Amino acid sequence: MLDVMLDMGKMARRAAHQLAKMRSEPKRLALENMAGALKRERQAIEAANQKDIEAAREKGLSGAKLDRLVLSDKVLNEMMAGLREVAALPDPVGEITRMWTRPNGLQVGRMRIPLGVIGIVYESRPNVTVDAGALCIKAGNAVILRGGSEAFHSNRCLASILQQSLRDSGLPGESLQLVGTTDRQAVLDMLQLEEHIDVMIPRGGEELIRFVTANARMPVLKHYKGVCHVYVDREADQSMAIPIVLNSKVQRPGVCNAMETLLVHEDIAEYFLPEMAALFNREGVELRGCPRTRELIPECAPATEEDWYAEYLDLVLAVRVVRSMDEAIDHITQYGSQHTEAIVTRHIRRAHRFVQEVQSSLVLVNASTRFNDGFQLGLGAEIGISTSRLHAFGPMGVEELTTTKFIAFGDGQLRS
Amino acid sequence: MLDVMLDMGKMARRAAHQLAKMRSEPKRLALENMAGALKRERQAIEAANQKDIEAAREKGLSGAKLDRLVLSDKVLNEMMAGLREVAALPDPVGEITRMWTRPNGLQVGRMRIPLGVIGIVYESRPNVTVDAGALCIKAGNAVILRGGSEAFHSNRCLASILQQSLRDSGLPGESLQLVGTTDRQAVLDMLQLEEHIDVMIPRGGEELIRFVTANARMPVLKHYKGVCHVYVDREADQSMAIPIVLNSKVQRPGVCNAMETLLVHEDIAEYFLPEMAALFNREGVELRGCPRTRELIPECAPATEEDWYAEYLDLVLAVRVVRSMDEAIDHITQYGSQHTEAIVTRHIRRAHRFVQEVQSSLVLVNASTRFNDGFQLGLGAEIGISTSRLHAFGPMGVEELTTTKFIAFGDGQLRS
Repeated sequence: MLDVMLDMGKMARRAAHQLAKMRSEPKRLALENMAGALKRERQAIEAANQKDIEAAREKGLSGAKLDRLVLSDKVLNEMMAGLREVAALPDPVGEITRMWTRPNGLQVGRMRIPLGVIGIVYESRPNVTVDAGALCIKAGNAVILRGGSEAFHSNRCLASILQQSLRDSGLPGESLQLVGTTDRQAVLDMLQLEEHIDVMIPRGGEELIRFVTANARMPVLKHYKGVCHVYVDREADQSMAIPIVLNSKVQRPGVCNAMETLLVHEDIAEYFLPEMAALFNREGVELRGCPRTRELIPECAPATEEDWYAEYLDLVLAVRVVRSMDEAIDHITQYGSQHTEAIVTRHIRRAHRFVQEVQSSLVLVNASTRFNDGFQLGLGAEIGISTSRLHAFGPMGVEELTTTKFIAFGDGQLRS
Repeated sequence: MLDVMLDMGKMARRAAHQLAKMRSEPKRLALENMAGALKRERQAIEAANQKDIEAAREKGLSGAKLDRLVLSDKVLNEMMAGLREVAALPDPVGEITRMWTRPNGLQVGRMRIPLGVIGIVYESRPNVTVDAGALCIKAGNAVILRGGSEAFHSNRCLASILQQSLRDSGLPGESLQLVGTTDRQAVLDMLQLEEHIDVMIPRGGEELIRFVTANARMPVLKHYKGVCHVYVDREADQSMAIPIVLNSKVQRPGVCNAMETLLVHEDIAEYFLPEMAALFNREGVELRGCPRTRELIPECAPATEEDWYAEYLDLVLAVRVVRSMDEAIDHITQYGSQHTEAIVTRHIRRAHRFVQEVQSSLVLVNASTRFNDGFQLGLGAEIGISTSRLHAFGPMGVEELTTTKFIAFGDGQLRS
């Protein structure tokens, strides 16, 4: 198995060398062609997907787990639209991000280049094969994909269509490879290939991410969880705070950038919290509060220590009254996951202090936590949100799939 | 042992939270004070260093290995000058690197923040304790240092002086901690602390780096080796090529950015190589060449396949005649270590193609490979040169010890 994986790694490395030299236009065209190929091969994709769905039903999967597998017309159309969007993004490769001249006349700069070979390990959704594959190729990287066993036939069908389309477009077919087995040993083997895979991106549950992190010899870009906070400051405009807090919690409670804990300054809690509680009640949000919160909202359940750490991903919210902004920041530092935090305040110095002192991947002033997303922040497509700090922190777009090298132009400079 | 290390990690994390909030001036002053403290405690440092030197002599160490240990007046003065230089560098933390406005009016930007906690594992040189520690603190990071057993007393003395100086300057003393033992288990324990150490930087031989990479759960910034090339193009100005080639090899042959393989276009090899060989002969450089090289330089030894991969770090050079720039680039891709490559050419399109297609951390045109160094490229001090692509590729200065978070200023924006 290790041999098979090693061969894939070597082929990916060769493909990456070729991709790195390519100009933007052939890459753009290849991505357009990939969308066309998916459209043409729609029947084959549906047939492969049907096999996975039947196997899943036999294994007793249902509900959300089964839904995630289904490549409906809607999902297929979204995949094609996604490919065309990625095709249309500006090519980050070759950009000279800065250039300066040294006292000896040497002109030094930094040029954006692909990362090389990216490994992606993911669970059930087969659309990752297309979405993540496209972003990697846009940034000039080769990609090795290892999907979950539930989506095996779908992934194999999608990957072979994309490979053929890449070849037809004059790009190396090995730019996108799918691992042919779904046993865990294949992942372990993949994680040893530090010479051939430059970075791993696990996409899935915490268990998968911890497994990859513990075993990988190469760097891992990862997203653990989002325990996001909104802090309603003493100086908040309450008419602005209410919709922001509500939107952060209920607009889509099951995602990582939804608010999980509300922090309210004690000076305004008396008026703010009962009004907020009435609105949450109407939306079916269950509240779990600190003692002061429970004085103001009698029907609120008590929050335990675990509640402050919880990523509910549901219509449940922890609420705490704080005596100061410092207490709010300390709470976020202690219990948060460095994902997304927002402050609502009218006071510019307090806003700026919050922005400077909170070390999360996105810190917002007077806006909903739900904006922590590559599309919403203007990065174009995203391959995930990193909650670790190295290389990328926060949403990762096509630029985060590149690095920079130094370049220098001289006229005979020597070191003395 | 794991408990001790875990406590260090927790203390480092707390210190990092405090450091991240600090303005530039107290950090600058603390670094200045550290230089003053080393000066005041010079006698204590020399006494501790003497213990290490005696122990090393007893163990039979001599030559370069012993030299590396010695904290002479010159080394101490360099350490103090280094601290003052780092103190004077601009503070990267808080810089807003970009800012843009979304269609909904949300102003989105990226702000530079510290990485958090940095772990450094190094071998004999005790000056790393000061040099690397200072750079980490400048960028607002806490640092956990683990030096080699040979420099144990020196490191312990230096670290305690720096810690006291940090406290005297109002910074947390735990911003800089030294692991109290030098057994390998301590390193293994350190490498498990992914919650408390954000990145590891091993500094030393390849064996140490591979050990850290294989066992670390957190990302590793590493430098394997420098197999650097100069390619003398068909269109080279030979009067420029000769000093560049000579400087790249002999100015300091024992370092990672010295040239190890010379590639020469066949059209000019006949004139260029014999002249070059005479100069190398005068400098005592041993040549190992391809068959064509040996036709032109009869006294040249044959190069084996291993020579193309070799990092000699010595007055030895592999030489190969190539038929085209593509062959040169392919050679670099196959045998190089992605460290530093230079082209000598007068032809702008050939220069630009080389710069675009060679994927090394520094690609130079018409200048010596010896410029791949943080000071030479204008980054100020450097903590090392990364040959892996994630986060930093090439010399790492104080900016590479930071990351960016997203910030967003709104006036009530909600996600719909």
